[in-house]
Amino acid sequence: MDLNTTEITKFLNELCDLAQIETMSRFRQAIDISNKLDSGFDPVTEADKAAELAIRDHILRHYADHGVLGEEFGSINPDAEYQWIVDPIDGTRSFISGMPTWGTLIGLYKAGKPYAGVMHQPFTGERYICDGEASHLVHNDKTTKLKTSGTEKLSESILMTTTPAIFNPSEREKYEHVEACCKMPRYGTDCYAYCLLASGHVDLVIETSLNVYDIAALIPIVKQAGGVFTNWQGGSAAQGGQVLVSANPTLHAEALFLLA
Amino acid sequence: MDLNTTEITKFLNELCDLAQIETMSRFRQAIDISNKLDSGFDPVTEADKAAELAIRDHILRHYADHGVLGEEFGSINPDAEYQWIVDPIDGTRSFISGMPTWGTLIGLYKAGKPYAGVMHQPFTGERYICDGEASHLVHNDKTTKLKTSGTEKLSESILMTTTPAIFNPSEREKYEHVEACCKMPRYGTDCYAYCLLASGHVDLVIETSLNVYDIAALIPIVKQAGGVFTNWQGGSAAQGGQVLVSANPTLHAEALFLLA
Repeated sequence: MDLNTTEITKFLNELCDLAQIETMSRFRQAIDISNKLDSGFDPVTEADKAAELAIRDHILRHYADHGVLGEEFGSINPDAEYQWIVDPIDGTRSFISGMPTWGTLIGLYKAGKPYAGVMHQPFTGERYICDGEASHLVHNDKTTKLKTSGTEKLSESILMTTTPAIFNPSEREKYEHVEACCKMPRYGTDCYAYCLLASGHVDLVIETSLNVYDIAALIPIVKQAGGVFTNWQGGSAAQGGQVLVSANPTLHAEALFLLA
Repeated sequence: MDLNTTEITKFLNELCDLAQIETMSRFRQAIDISNKLDSGFDPVTEADKAAELAIRDHILRHYADHGVLGEEFGSINPDAEYQWIVDPIDGTRSFISGMPTWGTLIGLYKAGKPYAGVMHQPFTGERYICDGEASHLVHNDKTTKLKTSGTEKLSESILMTTTPAIFNPSEREKYEHVEACCKMPRYGTDCYAYCLLASGHVDLVIETSLNVYDIAALIPIVKQAGGVFTNWQGGSAAQGGQVLVSANPTLHAEALFLLA
């Protein structure tokens, strides 16, 4: 049975409410941080795991035949038409540093395509929601329709990326070419960058090595606000990898020319 | 006449209330951004100017014989014992990108030395205040005493800086040496980084080319929370320049050895 926009919004909000209990009770507290990878520092917090379990549990109790794919606990019902794709804390490094720019990401794919989703930042209380047809910011009980900027020139654009260190040498060369053409780069932004782009404050986001759960919620939020979300070749970014996100098609074409 | 801790706290809060009217009415809105420098992009917003005027006016109506030094409108009474040092929006680039990590900085120097101050982030509602004797975070009507972390090893430290692009080549080499020894760097943080350090979430902040109004409020906040705040030679950072800020003296000595 198809989900309508009202059902999607209501359910995404329920999931955010549940996840928030787990994340906020541990934000800016002493928490156990374990190393997920042997090489490098990739923290997984208790909050990550507890929030994902709360989200998965609620989804499967309401939609037992839907699929769920989460960062921490893998996949269930991978052949279902509706797939919920969960990153309980995008920006774990921001989370453990106390920065208020991480987010809980819950995306919904329908027949393999990004369809709806939410980015929730519970410390600031912002919820960026796409219900399948439109994108809104809900903050302090006020709902604002999201619309990307009309900035069409690279030279007038604000560009965001989490850190230039995410790029391999060949990617970094291309990235720095774009950065040099922009008005201003900003780092340290994680999922928050994509929501600022959907809101019209930022014009470009360029990243790489992303997983599907890093972008599943963000693609519909950006697209329904008027943005363009592709990989560095202009194709689908629905499975992650290299992503180029722009406020409008004209700007996207200019950036794509330098990256592709 | 000397100001006591109660008077300082009350007055800093009044200044924050006034500045917030000017900054928040323009945050995430369409605003005029003019270029302050001929070379490069250094945005000054209407919000910057209006907030500084509101702060200066309130100070001079209450303490006509005090000094005021602001980023936008220069100095008054430069020989007075008490000097209020104002950066109406630290992190203008964050402000114009919609990031919630800029802050209004108001420092108080007494006989030339950093004495008290506030960093106010009005979107999140956080006020980090030093009243001359202790530092506190006030957020959602809850007051928390600030205390820096006990992390004494560089290899276990979280390091913040606004962007590696602020360093000249010789500074950058030293900075990158420290960064390589740390557990994790985070960029894009402006004044917020110093407050997270005072709160115990972050262990090191390294920056350069700072002006006195960039750090006047932050020095007392950090020091009264247990942190160490010097230049790269271990001397006073009270006039800006290169700064090294650490959670405790042991960690400071280790970082200073690599930078000096």
